Amino acid sequence: MNRFFNPSSVVVIGASNSPFNLGATICRSLHDFSPFQGAVYAVNRKGEEVYGCPGYTDVTDIPGDVDLAIVIAPAKVVPGFVKQCGERGIKRIVIESSGFSEGGEMGKTLQQEIDKIRRAYGMRIMGPNCLGVLNTENKFCCFYGVQKDNFDTFIQESGEISYIIQSGGIVVIVLESFMSEVVKAAKVVSIGNKSDIDEADMIEYLNTDEKTKVICMYLENIKDGRKFMEIAKKVHKPILAFKVGRTTEGVRAAQSHTAGMANNDLIFENACKQSGVIRVDSISELHSLPKIFTHMPPLKGKRIAMFTNSGAFGGITADLLVQAGLEMAKLSPETQERLSRTGRIFNVSNPIDLGPALSMQTFLEIFDILLSSEEVDGLLPVPSLWHPMVIEAIMELVKKCHEYGKPAAIYTPNAAEKTILYRNKYKIPLFVSPEEAVRALEVSHRQYGYHLMKEAAQQRTDFEKRLRRSDSAYGDYVEGA
Amino acid sequence: MNRFFNPSSVVVIGASNSPFNLGATICRSLHDFSPFQGAVYAVNRKGEEVYGCPGYTDVTDIPGDVDLAIVIAPAKVVPGFVKQCGERGIKRIVIESSGFSEGGEMGKTLQQEIDKIRRAYGMRIMGPNCLGVLNTENKFCCFYGVQKDNFDTFIQESGEISYIIQSGGIVVIVLESFMSEVVKAAKVVSIGNKSDIDEADMIEYLNTDEKTKVICMYLENIKDGRKFMEIAKKVHKPILAFKVGRTTEGVRAAQSHTAGMANNDLIFENACKQSGVIRVDSISELHSLPKIFTHMPPLKGKRIAMFTNSGAFGGITADLLVQAGLEMAKLSPETQERLSRTGRIFNVSNPIDLGPALSMQTFLEIFDILLSSEEVDGLLPVPSLWHPMVIEAIMELVKKCHEYGKPAAIYTPNAAEKTILYRNKYKIPLFVSPEEAVRALEVSHRQYGYHLMKEAAQQRTDFEKRLRRSDSAYGDYVEGA
Repeated sequence: MNRFFNPSSVVVIGASNSPFNLGATICRSLHDFSPFQGAVYAVNRKGEEVYGCPGYTDVTDIPGDVDLAIVIAPAKVVPGFVKQCGERGIKRIVIESSGFSEGGEMGKTLQQEIDKIRRAYGMRIMGPNCLGVLNTENKFCCFYGVQKDNFDTFIQESGEISYIIQSGGIVVIVLESFMSEVVKAAKVVSIGNKSDIDEADMIEYLNTDEKTKVICMYLENIKDGRKFMEIAKKVHKPILAFKVGRTTEGVRAAQSHTAGMANNDLIFENACKQSGVIRVDSISELHSLPKIFTHMPPLKGKRIAMFTNSGAFGGITADLLVQAGLEMAKLSPETQERLSRTGRIFNVSNPIDLGPALSMQTFLEIFDILLSSEEVDGLLPVPSLWHPMVIEAIMELVKKCHEYGKPAAIYTPNAAEKTILYRNKYKIPLFVSPEEAVRALEVSHRQYGYHLMKEAAQQRTDFEKRLRRSDSAYGDYVEGA
Repeated sequence: MNRFFNPSSVVVIGASNSPFNLGATICRSLHDFSPFQGAVYAVNRKGEEVYGCPGYTDVTDIPGDVDLAIVIAPAKVVPGFVKQCGERGIKRIVIESSGFSEGGEMGKTLQQEIDKIRRAYGMRIMGPNCLGVLNTENKFCCFYGVQKDNFDTFIQESGEISYIIQSGGIVVIVLESFMSEVVKAAKVVSIGNKSDIDEADMIEYLNTDEKTKVICMYLENIKDGRKFMEIAKKVHKPILAFKVGRTTEGVRAAQSHTAGMANNDLIFENACKQSGVIRVDSISELHSLPKIFTHMPPLKGKRIAMFTNSGAFGGITADLLVQAGLEMAKLSPETQERLSRTGRIFNVSNPIDLGPALSMQTFLEIFDILLSSEEVDGLLPVPSLWHPMVIEAIMELVKKCHEYGKPAAIYTPNAAEKTILYRNKYKIPLFVSPEEAVRALEVSHRQYGYHLMKEAAQQRTDFEKRLRRSDSAYGDYVEGA
C-alpha cells in the first residue's frame, strides 16, 4: 500500500494536450509543481508528451518499471487500460474516472469488468470515481485539477493528520482549513466507489504509517462493517469519522454520488462504538478536533476546572461540560485558598472567575495550582485576549500541560475570525467556540477511556490464560501424584 | 424607556481622575469618542472635571436638566447616590457597579435598599452589575472600559439587530463578530442583576423601536416567566434567545455571575414555545442567524431544493434538513426536464449536482426554475467559489429571492475564514457551515409558522365573535317577530 503514496514511477493514462483535459492537470502537478523525483509518463491516443511527461499510445510501450498507473480516461475505455496495466505488470492503479457504479447499470457492468481483470492479474485498485492520493511528505499528489497557487499553499507543510475521504470537495475544505490550524495533513486519500481498496484497508495502512498520528474519515457509506470493525479495533491511534446517511434522504443523496449500498446507519454507529472510532457530527470537527490529540496529553478523568475573566462563560461551559458527560471539578477549600492567594480573583470556586485584569505571575501560579491538583483532570481556560501578555501565558500553559500530563482545551472569547488569526500567528491550539473546546475534551476522554478498557480486557484475558495454564499444571501435578 | 437610549443630558456618578477609574472611561467615550451631543457631567468626591465633563461633589449641584444618571461608585455608597438622584428629579438610572445581589448577603441588602428608594421616587433602574446601553444610531454608549479603537470599529455602523444581554463579555463577541457580518447592531442593552428593568421590559420597548428588526437575547436567568411570555406573545419581530442553565452546574455558575434565582430551565423552555421565542443553542447563533430574517424573505413551507457542485454536500445537507424537521423538495419530471435543459447538469433530482463548471446563464436559469416552482419553498445553495462569476451569481440569487418571496440559505464549501472574508468583501449573506445554513432555514420557518398559527387563532376568535353577534342579532329578530 505504501507504494501508492511513494511510487518510484507513474503513468497517467488519459493525459493529453486536448483543451480541458483533466489528466494533463495531473502531469502538470507532478512535473511542474511537485518536487516529486520519479518518472512520470503519459498515455494518450497520439502518444504525445504532456507537460514534459513522455507520451505513449499503449501502456505496454513504456520503457522501464512503472509502479503506479493513474487512469482518467472515459469510463468505457477504462477496462481495456486496466488490462494493459495487468499485462505490463503494474500492480497498483488509481482510477479517477467517473461513470461507474455511481452512474447506472452500464457503469455497474463496467465496474464489475474492472474487478474481474484486477483479480486475474492480482492488482490493487483505488477508486473508481476518486482523486487518489496526496502525500505531503514527498509532495506526491495525483489529484486532478490542482492549480499552482493551491498546490503551493495547501501542500506546503507536512503534518501528522491523515484523511480517508470519499469525496474531493471535502479534501479542499480540510486542506484550506489547515492553512490557519496548528496541525497539518500527512496523507490524504480519496477512495471514491471503493471497488477494491476500502476504508478498512486504508485504516490498516495508516496505522502502520509513522507520520500519521490521527486518522480522520469522511464516508458516504461503509463497504464491510465487520472488516471495518475488526481492523479499527486493532488501531491505537485516534480515529475520527464523519459519515453521511443518518436519514433516508441523506443515504439516497450519497448513493448518487459515490454509489454506496443503502447501509443501515445503525450498523456503522455500532461498529464505531465497538471499535473505539469516534463518530463526529460535522465536517468542521474533522479539522478542528485533531489538535487535542497532537498538542495536548490525553484527558484521563472527567473532572474539568474552568477559568475565565468573562463571567458569562462560566455558566455556558458548565452546561456544555455536563451535557458532554464531563464534570465540573470540585475544588477543596485548600485549593480555593491557594487560588485566592494568587491575586484579586473574583470567584475561586469552579468555574473560576479571574476578574478583568491579571498578571503573568498570577496566571502561572493558577496553572500550577490547577494542573498539580488531584481534584482536576483537565482544564477549560477561557481567557480574554485583552493584553499581549495573555498570549504568552497561553504559550506557557501549553508547556505546563505537557509537564503535568493533563490537557487544556483553550477558547478565547472572541469572534471566530480573530481567534483564527491569533491561532495562526502564534501557533497555539485555540478552539473557535466553547462548544468546540468542550467537544475536544470529550473526544480526548473517550479515546483514552476506550483504550484503557481495551487494555483492561486484554489483561483479564492474559490473566485467565495464565490461570488456565496453572490449572492444567496443577492437573498434571495431581495426575502425576 | 427611549430616554435610556436617547438622553439629552447625562451624569456619570463615580467618574474621577484617579488611576484606573472606570467612570472616567465612560466620560471619555461620551466626550471624546462619541458624536453624542448632550451634556455630560461627572460626580466625584473632589468635584473635579473628568475628560472635559464638568465635575460636582453632589448630584443636586448640577445645573440644568439631567435625563439619565450612570452610577459606577462602590456598592456601599450607591444607595446614597440613588437617593440624591431621586431628590434631583432624575427618573432614569443605570447602575454599573457590582457587589449587589450577585455578591452575598451584604449585597442583597444594598440592592433591596436601592429598590425601596427607587419606588419612593418613581424612578426606573437598569442593573446593578451591568454595562447599560449602546445606541448605534446616535452612538450613545455608557459601557465602561471602551478603548478608542474598539469604539471606532465596533460602533461605526448602525444596523437592525438589537440585543438584550445579561453579560458584558457577550456584548464584545457579538460586536466583534458583526465586523464581518452583513448585519449590524441597532441597540444593545446589558441588564445585569435586573433589580427593576428586566428582559420583558426591554422586549416591549424594542418591539416599538423602528430601527430594530430582530431581537436577540443572552440570559442567565429569567425574572418573571409569565410576564416574559405575555409580552413576547405580542411581538411580531423574531426573538432569538440563548439562556444559560440547562444543567444544575450551569445554573450554579450563572448565579455567582448575575445573581439569578435557580430557575427551572423547563419554565423558560415552555415560555419560549408558547410565545414563539426561538431558543438558540450557542452564542454564535445570536450573530449568525439574524441575517436570514433581514436579508431573505421568510420560509413559508418545508420543501427545500439543494444544489451544489461539490457532490458530498448533497448527502450532508439532506441529513441536516431532515433532522431539522424540513424536507427535501420532490422535483417533478417536468421540473427535472427544465433543469436538464439549462446545461450539463450531473444530477437534476434534488439534491441537484451541478457538476464542476457552470455558466452565469445556467445559474440564473436554475434560480428561476427552482424559485418559481410550486414544488419548492426555499433554497439551500452550496456553490463552490471556483470563479469570481459565482459571487456575481450569488448576488443575483439574493435579488431573485426577494422577487419570488422565497429564501436561500447560502453556504460556500470553504474554510470558515475564507467564507467570512467573502461575506465581508461582497456583503452577501453567507453562512460558514452547512449546519448554520440549515439552522437558519429552520428558524425562519419556525418564526413564520408561529405567526401564521397566531393569526389563524386570531381569525377564529374574530369569526366566533361575529358568529355570536349574528346569533344575538337573529335572537333580536326572533324576539321582535
